[in-house]
Amino acid sequence: MILTVTLNTALDITYRVGSLRPHASHRVSEVTERPGGKGVNVARVLAALGHEVTVTGFTGGATGRVVQEKLAAVPGLVDALVPLSGSTRRTVAVVDERTGDTTQLNEPGPTVAPVEWSAFQEAYADLLPVASAVALCGSLPPGVPVGAYAGLIRTARSFGLPVLLDTSGEPLRRGVAARPDIIKPNADELAELTGSHEPLRATQDARRRGAGAVVASLGPEGLLAATREGRWRATPPTSAQGNPTGAGDAVVAGLLSAWTDHLPWPARLTRAIALSTATVLAPVAGEFDRGVYEELLGQVSVTSTPSAA
Amino acid sequence: MILTVTLNTALDITYRVGSLRPHASHRVSEVTERPGGKGVNVARVLAALGHEVTVTGFTGGATGRVVQEKLAAVPGLVDALVPLSGSTRRTVAVVDERTGDTTQLNEPGPTVAPVEWSAFQEAYADLLPVASAVALCGSLPPGVPVGAYAGLIRTARSFGLPVLLDTSGEPLRRGVAARPDIIKPNADELAELTGSHEPLRATQDARRRGAGAVVASLGPEGLLAATREGRWRATPPTSAQGNPTGAGDAVVAGLLSAWTDHLPWPARLTRAIALSTATVLAPVAGEFDRGVYEELLGQVSVTSTPSAA
Repeated sequence: MILTVTLNTALDITYRVGSLRPHASHRVSEVTERPGGKGVNVARVLAALGHEVTVTGFTGGATGRVVQEKLAAVPGLVDALVPLSGSTRRTVAVVDERTGDTTQLNEPGPTVAPVEWSAFQEAYADLLPVASAVALCGSLPPGVPVGAYAGLIRTARSFGLPVLLDTSGEPLRRGVAARPDIIKPNADELAELTGSHEPLRATQDARRRGAGAVVASLGPEGLLAATREGRWRATPPTSAQGNPTGAGDAVVAGLLSAWTDHLPWPARLTRAIALSTATVLAPVAGEFDRGVYEELLGQVSVTSTPSAA
Repeated sequence: MILTVTLNTALDITYRVGSLRPHASHRVSEVTERPGGKGVNVARVLAALGHEVTVTGFTGGATGRVVQEKLAAVPGLVDALVPLSGSTRRTVAVVDERTGDTTQLNEPGPTVAPVEWSAFQEAYADLLPVASAVALCGSLPPGVPVGAYAGLIRTARSFGLPVLLDTSGEPLRRGVAARPDIIKPNADELAELTGSHEPLRATQDARRRGAGAVVASLGPEGLLAATREGRWRATPPTSAQGNPTGAGDAVVAGLLSAWTDHLPWPARLTRAIALSTATVLAPVAGEFDRGVYEELLGQVSVTSTPSAA
């Protein structure tokens, strides 16, 4: 079982409107709802690929109940969310049908009480003996200590489990020092961590700070990986035009999927690129088309890269 | 007990954001939620005034459960909503803290199945023997026949109950023909019903179409009432600057409250104006300040008006 952790789960709501005009009243023509938060998105992709996956993190209130009802409908996915007295946040994406633009409204996450954070850490430790890998994903809600991921990484490593960390800012900086096996920053997150805007140099620097492997996601340019076994660039076959929502979470899912299948780095990067490109090309945000994914697997270019001077 | 009917109930959500910019991502600084729909708003004001009030209409899904949880917390208010297989709609009001402007996003209402409409009509008839007055408020959800209010008015009248109708368009036109005791159109709704943009003429015309009394709400200019007993204009003491959300529902509550207290028309209009002005002046949309309301009661001007030529 692959365990994904989402401390800041969400219900992602999408509204379609004719044209969004500030100060006007709008009739929403279509409403869609999905459980969200990065680790939940990763878990959904892993489940679609046929992996057994367990979701943990927090859930609370009426919105949390909706998230759990929807997770229960995903085959292969087990819900191990921990109850919270506060309410799970909603995000509202308002899609303008005229321009295709999306306007995003994100509710603040609920505050986690110390007793709830303790209960989560216990539940997490109880799940690790049956896990094969752990993904720690997304931002920290208020009340969770900034060093939270560092602690969760150490616990997972004490069970001998590989850990992937996908977060940003100070939680990333603290987490890296606890030696996660993989981090997956985007260009901005990597620059904030290392102070370098040169990706090759920055990935190597992030490894020196403690990350076993650094897989930097560079948007349409694909992935740059610095690992113990070597350095690679992986690029998609086409410049995919579409909705980038969920593309980063698909990269995480691809890396974990190939890792737990014991594939070498080039195959892990290939799976990550094929999944993220299939996600960008999918008509529904955050979903991927299996046929497109399998076709793309044969078309990803992975090349070995020399180290920065 | 006063019975209010809201066939299109809602959960009214308010988001505060720094500044709403289309195509940008926004952190919501404050989230508030209230049960909504016109009849629910009317009932909340009536309960705050000390009346026993029962709310009926439809409720469904996770959002309906939240509406019902919040109604259960209102003292003096009884929830008699009828279950629906579809989900109660949400409305999202996005308040721009920089400009004070509100941008409104309204989900479509759920579709009511014929068997659900029949179940509602039975539940409604069961509530009438213990009611003292009925308010039918708001739009009709998909699936409810356009003549719905006409039928509900006839049923209430068969129990000898006074009925107030507050809706618009074809449901108002059909409803008026069933002879409700009061209708409360705004200027646009009255013009659409009668074809006349001259309020005095239009109120008299609406009475000829079947309404026992017509109380037209003319925004900051107050109310114009055409009744069996006479015609009056009622105006607020000050031009109230504030949020007009819920002001119309406060008028309905004021009319019903004074009516069931057996007060004559000028006192009914006074209560309606004082409540709606206290609602506009309140810091929270749709709420009213009791102290302001009681102070305003002594300051409303009600003058008798001759009939149109």
